[in-house]
Amino acid sequence: MAIRLLLYSVTFLFSSAISITNIHPKFPCSIAKPVEKLSLSTKTEEKYFTQILDHFNYHPQSYHTFQQRYLINDKYWGGGAPNNSPIFVYTGNEGHIEWFAQNTGFMFDFAPHFKALLVFIEHRYYGKSIPFGGDKEKAYSNSTTLGYLSSTQALADYATLIIDLKYNLSATHSPVVVFGGSYGGMLSAWFRLKYPHVAIGALASSAPILNFDNITSPYSFNNIITRDFRSESENCYKVIKGSWQEIKETAKKYGGLQKLRKSFRICKNYISPESLENWLNTAYVYTAMADYPTPSNFLNPLPPYPVKEMCRAIDDPKTVNNTFKKLYGAANIFYNYTGNSTCFNLVDNSDPQGLGGWIWQVCTEMILPTGGNADDSIFPSSKWSYNDIAQFCKNKLNIEPRPNWITTEFGGHNIHRILERFGSNIIFFNGLRDPWSGGGVLKNISKSIVAIVAKEGAHHVDLRFSSSEDPKWLKDVRRKEVDIISKWLSEYYNNLNDSS
Amino acid sequence: MAIRLLLYSVTFLFSSAISITNIHPKFPCSIAKPVEKLSLSTKTEEKYFTQILDHFNYHPQSYHTFQQRYLINDKYWGGGAPNNSPIFVYTGNEGHIEWFAQNTGFMFDFAPHFKALLVFIEHRYYGKSIPFGGDKEKAYSNSTTLGYLSSTQALADYATLIIDLKYNLSATHSPVVVFGGSYGGMLSAWFRLKYPHVAIGALASSAPILNFDNITSPYSFNNIITRDFRSESENCYKVIKGSWQEIKETAKKYGGLQKLRKSFRICKNYISPESLENWLNTAYVYTAMADYPTPSNFLNPLPPYPVKEMCRAIDDPKTVNNTFKKLYGAANIFYNYTGNSTCFNLVDNSDPQGLGGWIWQVCTEMILPTGGNADDSIFPSSKWSYNDIAQFCKNKLNIEPRPNWITTEFGGHNIHRILERFGSNIIFFNGLRDPWSGGGVLKNISKSIVAIVAKEGAHHVDLRFSSSEDPKWLKDVRRKEVDIISKWLSEYYNNLNDSS
Repeated sequence: MAIRLLLYSVTFLFSSAISITNIHPKFPCSIAKPVEKLSLSTKTEEKYFTQILDHFNYHPQSYHTFQQRYLINDKYWGGGAPNNSPIFVYTGNEGHIEWFAQNTGFMFDFAPHFKALLVFIEHRYYGKSIPFGGDKEKAYSNSTTLGYLSSTQALADYATLIIDLKYNLSATHSPVVVFGGSYGGMLSAWFRLKYPHVAIGALASSAPILNFDNITSPYSFNNIITRDFRSESENCYKVIKGSWQEIKETAKKYGGLQKLRKSFRICKNYISPESLENWLNTAYVYTAMADYPTPSNFLNPLPPYPVKEMCRAIDDPKTVNNTFKKLYGAANIFYNYTGNSTCFNLVDNSDPQGLGGWIWQVCTEMILPTGGNADDSIFPSSKWSYNDIAQFCKNKLNIEPRPNWITTEFGGHNIHRILERFGSNIIFFNGLRDPWSGGGVLKNISKSIVAIVAKEGAHHVDLRFSSSEDPKWLKDVRRKEVDIISKWLSEYYNNLNDSS
Repeated sequence: MAIRLLLYSVTFLFSSAISITNIHPKFPCSIAKPVEKLSLSTKTEEKYFTQILDHFNYHPQSYHTFQQRYLINDKYWGGGAPNNSPIFVYTGNEGHIEWFAQNTGFMFDFAPHFKALLVFIEHRYYGKSIPFGGDKEKAYSNSTTLGYLSSTQALADYATLIIDLKYNLSATHSPVVVFGGSYGGMLSAWFRLKYPHVAIGALASSAPILNFDNITSPYSFNNIITRDFRSESENCYKVIKGSWQEIKETAKKYGGLQKLRKSFRICKNYISPESLENWLNTAYVYTAMADYPTPSNFLNPLPPYPVKEMCRAIDDPKTVNNTFKKLYGAANIFYNYTGNSTCFNLVDNSDPQGLGGWIWQVCTEMILPTGGNADDSIFPSSKWSYNDIAQFCKNKLNIEPRPNWITTEFGGHNIHRILERFGSNIIFFNGLRDPWSGGGVLKNISKSIVAIVAKEGAHHVDLRFSSSEDPKWLKDVRRKEVDIISKWLSEYYNNLNDSS
């Protein structure tokens, strides 16, 4: 199987429909905030911390430092000693930290209630937190410089920065709660497990920490997307499922590519069945992840319940028997909800969120088997193959993945048995509409390592800014989360008083 | 203050009495097994595992591998699946692994009871587990090669090796309990905290995990030695305390050095007051650590209760008013209990246990403030100074320590509050005669993170081979430990049956 890399970006990482369904990590998965709340999040102040390049070794290069960016908002903070008001920290994922700050309205919404300081820490090698003098071209030039981009280094960065920040704010006794969504959610859960002396608890939203090794089926991801569309309408599912063959057959015919180009209003005179399939696949996958109950702006602006909207377009009686018209209508929901586009590019080289480093992470440790498609998948059936990833990574980056490292370092196998008597204070939120939920923790592990599951929810919907249009289930989820965090804080303050 | 490095060995790391009391890390602290039990421990088989050089990064050098040695004994093992008999793993410290295997009779003594597999893993850069092709000269030649010697890498080595070993033995469901004494004890406790998915519990004996930052007073270590000697006899304490000044004054006099050389039967025609003070200091420190109730062979053979024996020599009425005769008698207990030596070398360049790497660890992350001496110390009063260490490390190794790293990575501050609701299944054993006990966990943290304290005990005495002469308190300690480990195993098997 040929795997071509089109973009140095996670969002549209791989070109062919086959490769995307087999390999595509489909991270990140954050959503933009509703426009009316922009003012809140922009009130953060940008700061920098001198961070060490390599926490775990002592060779000369490991002593290099870089400027790590973090955003801070102290508007609601009750202060350090003697109040010891809490500090809420977002453990940044694979992109500009502003993007995650803007998309984690939960922290802004509840900061006044908790009198919390808000801190959003940027992940090394993303945004403005670039080692090697901030020179991204140099940092990304080869494995000698990019080799320090890893999840364990990122976690140690967060620990080091938080301890220093608390010290400088005279807030050593202020409890820290960490938050994260998607990869950031994995980091927040792992942070609580590895650094309990730094964070008293973690809200890990849509964190597929069980999507490694063979813990979760590689079919799970696409099974959930299939279920999402099928739940809206059986016809919708059937039309999409049948469309892949129709595209292939059309492309083979004389004038077929031209017909496809016209049907999907492709701007440039370039089209291949693979690029079209990939373009459509991307639309379905991200729409499933962003199947929120209110308007959102994930990678693109979307209406409420966009999967339903896609299926409405496909089921439109006016396009009876014209599959391409139906698909075009569905694609319009994802690619052109504002109605401003008159034509589309199948390949988009832009990377506004700065996600370029993710491919490195995918090719080193973030081996998330998600690309399998069962016979009844909405996508063409296929198997997931580790060897395909390994070959791709060798060809493109000359790097060998370490597929067992994440479970070696962080666990995952038999997690209920292992954490039943170890650890505490983690909330795992998952929405079952989210394809990543298959790799999430969906059942309570212990009294204080709990799962909150919303069957109507999509990818870290709980972390979004609240809105008056939020459905009851979403309000309930957030209320539960706030209650649990309140309990952690009460326990912490009780202990603090006992020991002082 | 001048600090001279005499030996590339932890045992006699620094030359002057001042520097030794200010800086000397005084690790390792293991004890040799009684001779009659030798046959048991030599029954281990030597094996090697291909280990990755750098678990946390992905630059080209991090992919290098080396052969990591481990010793294994399956004589008592009940086997992997379906019996799932336990695996006891010793997390090796800073020396040849045979030495630690030979000195951890506890594991051999109780292996039959538990039907346990015994595994002793050698710490990277020690013994035969040398990166860079096993070429110790190369591996130790500079910071570029030695820079991968760190505690976090060692822990990740253990996780990686154990997971692989269990897989190869068809024993993935066999519970692992880790054991360690001294630095190895710190590693075992940290291993349980960081890798709960690999080890179900840890017996951390004499692990001074609180001897970092300012958690434990730098005076604690020598305070305990002072207390040990004083508890035997006030006169003994006073003679030693007064002797430092007498040595100094004698050395200044005409013929004084010659007098000291004769008094202490120094072989070679070299002596300085500092080397003599250091030689005596070493004897007192290690005798306090090895103040066991039965004959032992720590660095040197010792009688039961050697501190008492030293004080008996000092209090000997036959040497009234002759301080040097008294000190000589005491030194003979530590340096010449077999009576074979006719004269002594103040400086010993041998390193039979292969402890050379410890100075690197002391100068990078293992900043253990122990060298302070209060006014009533048995040693000359002095302050502990981080700057002295930093200067020493800069001069000798051109390396800058990271004095806050251990508490950043592993915690330690407010440990009771933090681990009260986090983690489980750790036994912290400490004997209060052990100078390291001041940096140990001496009170229960939770129901399953417990402290066992023996006021009569010395440095990881519990891990020694049992003997018919063991006092009741020592038998009680071991019985408690066995009971607790049995409980961990029962809980594990109950959970395993529930979930299968």
